[in-house]
Amino acid sequence: MKAAIVGGGVIGGGWAARFLLNGWDVAVFDPDAEAERKVTEVIANARRSLPGLYDRALPEEGSLRFCTSLGEAVSAAAWVQESVPERLDLKQRVLSEIQAAIEPSAVIASSTSGFKPSELQAAAQRPEQILVCHPFNPVYLLPLVEVVPSDANTQELRERCTAILRQIGMKPLVVRREIDAHIADRLLEAVWREALWLVKDDVATTQEIDDAIRFGFGLRWAQMGLFETYRIAGGEGGMAHFMKQFGPALKWPWTKLMDVPELTDDLVARIAEQSDAQSGHHDLRRLERLRDDNLVAILRALKNNAWGAGETLATHEETLPDPAEAEAEDAITVERRVPYSWTDYNGHMNEAHYLEVFAQASDRFMALIGADADYIDKGSSYFTVESHLRHLDEVKAGEDLRVRTRVIGGDGRKLHLFHQMESENRRLAATGEHLLIHVDLKTRRSSTPGAEISENLLRYQRRHSTLDTPGGVGRFVGQRH
Amino acid sequence: MKAAIVGGGVIGGGWAARFLLNGWDVAVFDPDAEAERKVTEVIANARRSLPGLYDRALPEEGSLRFCTSLGEAVSAAAWVQESVPERLDLKQRVLSEIQAAIEPSAVIASSTSGFKPSELQAAAQRPEQILVCHPFNPVYLLPLVEVVPSDANTQELRERCTAILRQIGMKPLVVRREIDAHIADRLLEAVWREALWLVKDDVATTQEIDDAIRFGFGLRWAQMGLFETYRIAGGEGGMAHFMKQFGPALKWPWTKLMDVPELTDDLVARIAEQSDAQSGHHDLRRLERLRDDNLVAILRALKNNAWGAGETLATHEETLPDPAEAEAEDAITVERRVPYSWTDYNGHMNEAHYLEVFAQASDRFMALIGADADYIDKGSSYFTVESHLRHLDEVKAGEDLRVRTRVIGGDGRKLHLFHQMESENRRLAATGEHLLIHVDLKTRRSSTPGAEISENLLRYQRRHSTLDTPGGVGRFVGQRH
Repeated sequence: MKAAIVGGGVIGGGWAARFLLNGWDVAVFDPDAEAERKVTEVIANARRSLPGLYDRALPEEGSLRFCTSLGEAVSAAAWVQESVPERLDLKQRVLSEIQAAIEPSAVIASSTSGFKPSELQAAAQRPEQILVCHPFNPVYLLPLVEVVPSDANTQELRERCTAILRQIGMKPLVVRREIDAHIADRLLEAVWREALWLVKDDVATTQEIDDAIRFGFGLRWAQMGLFETYRIAGGEGGMAHFMKQFGPALKWPWTKLMDVPELTDDLVARIAEQSDAQSGHHDLRRLERLRDDNLVAILRALKNNAWGAGETLATHEETLPDPAEAEAEDAITVERRVPYSWTDYNGHMNEAHYLEVFAQASDRFMALIGADADYIDKGSSYFTVESHLRHLDEVKAGEDLRVRTRVIGGDGRKLHLFHQMESENRRLAATGEHLLIHVDLKTRRSSTPGAEISENLLRYQRRHSTLDTPGGVGRFVGQRH
Repeated sequence: MKAAIVGGGVIGGGWAARFLLNGWDVAVFDPDAEAERKVTEVIANARRSLPGLYDRALPEEGSLRFCTSLGEAVSAAAWVQESVPERLDLKQRVLSEIQAAIEPSAVIASSTSGFKPSELQAAAQRPEQILVCHPFNPVYLLPLVEVVPSDANTQELRERCTAILRQIGMKPLVVRREIDAHIADRLLEAVWREALWLVKDDVATTQEIDDAIRFGFGLRWAQMGLFETYRIAGGEGGMAHFMKQFGPALKWPWTKLMDVPELTDDLVARIAEQSDAQSGHHDLRRLERLRDDNLVAILRALKNNAWGAGETLATHEETLPDPAEAEAEDAITVERRVPYSWTDYNGHMNEAHYLEVFAQASDRFMALIGADADYIDKGSSYFTVESHLRHLDEVKAGEDLRVRTRVIGGDGRKLHLFHQMESENRRLAATGEHLLIHVDLKTRRSSTPGAEISENLLRYQRRHSTLDTPGGVGRFVGQRH
């Protein structure tokens, strides 16, 4: 599948990265001589952070091409993403050029943050092909896309569009009525105006306003948004009680938003100076990476709880292929990249994450023999009772890991596994030897696995027993070589 | 130290929990017959989540008392937190009663979200004693407090106030100019009005608005806020470029905020219905716990990156005592509670977190012998090369853990440690045997530790060598008893 990216700024670059890292071929067109450098930098950031969200490997990257003509870029593309500057006449002209060079079956999506789809379609040959897909920066990490169709778009197009967005890991929010600035930017615009007043009136600096957000309600909004949070604030009376209690405050003179502050040179300069004082000690690259590391950590935390944006991630992760070579000599049970958040003060992957990866390998092997989520739901599982880890080589953030799993013993209630962790270039980075016991989850005591499990296990055990015993099995801590 | 909580709703209960779990004695007064139940429920939520933020134990809880008179509650308190309903006459009356019963040296803080401190002080005997400390729900987890003094408050009071707030783990944001609704609620109010318009005009439901927040900019705001995010969006041109690019949009008719929507019965009912459809399948308790589990996970993720609210946490954590009994027979190297986010599909602490706790124990022991952060900064450290874990008993979320550490060998470059993890009631839950090697962080090769390290290590080794060898040392995986 090919995606064409028309307009190669921060947003276009983010789209390019999303598609590319999810296996699409990507062609970029932007007449700006700097576009290739800018897009390449965004993709470098994405390569650093996006794969770390997942506990499985992303598909193999597609090809990336920078084109010198729009026609070449969009030719044979299934998706065209337009992210040129926010001028209606310019967008209409570019959309016409795109339509002249592309099949009617392709999706043409505009990143516009302000215009309605009907405005974009007004001058188009095939209005039905064009709709708004408005993403959020950084596009390669934030799941939200506001999908805004007009009456001109068919249901089929809408469904194809949201299916593709889900396939590249995004959360399409279909906006049911087209309005200027869609939904999220309406909210952002309101906050932005109010914040400008606070700075203009010297009530708060940019730093103080940011702190008022990120140490308080920003932490709530990362997971629940406005209404669900207020529902809780309403206590046992719920939303209706909250409305009754706080409704009257709307009439108080709390907000300056009856008017728009004049963006005088003085105000712009004050904001720029305060922003320098707040963030100027980090250069842009550093700030982007701090943001991305925090986003990855927050998103992984939410994924663990299968909540909000973390649920989007979890759902997407399930569509990623399991390690393919379960039928290899040793079962391949893990293929993944090391997130940056796994680095410790020694500058390498912290030891606890070695066990996290081996636990993932054990889980995957359990699934291979039939002890999967369904089996666990029915009341049985394996508990690890003993582990032995050898750290043979350092592993750094961003490396691709692979784990090969060997059955050492699997009779009765016991499952004795040996994992070999390979880092990049197939270096053996660590081994994990583990004894697991089959348990009844109700009594929390050992129990006999189901017949199917035992048979599957026996099959692996037979195959693996013909192989040489890997080095490191049966050793104790501190044993001489 | 004693804190008095006047007004025992969700906010008062959150304050009670903050103080109590940080070691303060707490006295609550609220004439509402339901107050004791409500406050107790908030404290139960706090006990479940707050200790899980930290990798050290919180101080021992203070005492909790529900009082039948205001005078009894505030007597001898160093801090009084007023959280009665938002009516100025009521707040002024309660503040007067408090002042009549308390020393002039105590801090009297109001949780008001709307009133200015000068308004609260207007009818007071000692205006200089009263200021605004406006927290955010859940008060026991969110660090932000807007501290709003007036000219009547001395610098000494402001400093005492912020020092106490930091001591209970909060982030005081001193608001330099008093205005209605301070800073954060001004921003929230703006979003709230805009959101009400979106629902009223049937552009979006409460669920859609929440999704527009939590899948997109809410994730940015949890860490950076508004201006720092936009600074990045401005690219290499920074904030001034962003203002130039997006300033004009302020003049577009994007926002409805020129007016306030009428809160008709119809609109209130519509919002309540949509909120029910969105969240009604979770009862209030469940929703609170989901929120708290997500907050703990997000805050722990940010703590790992020492960023934003996570930095507040990390700073607070450093003020918590290290495990005290380093001089005990076995060194006590970890005392902590198990966060709820550590639970896996088997309903107990996931195995990777056992190693996380043992790694923490090794780190603490390294610090005890002088291989601390400073030592590591100077270019040497210990790397774990081998570990053996035995899982002897299940550990559940919310349990208090303690780890005892024994030196098995410590000559030359090697450090051979044995950790015993006790869960509640002193059950032995797991053991960890670890071999660490002293390394030069530049060459990444083994090296000889400094003389001070070796001497300190020898001291521990001598003491521990007189003790019986603990069961489990030197075993291999699957070894019979």
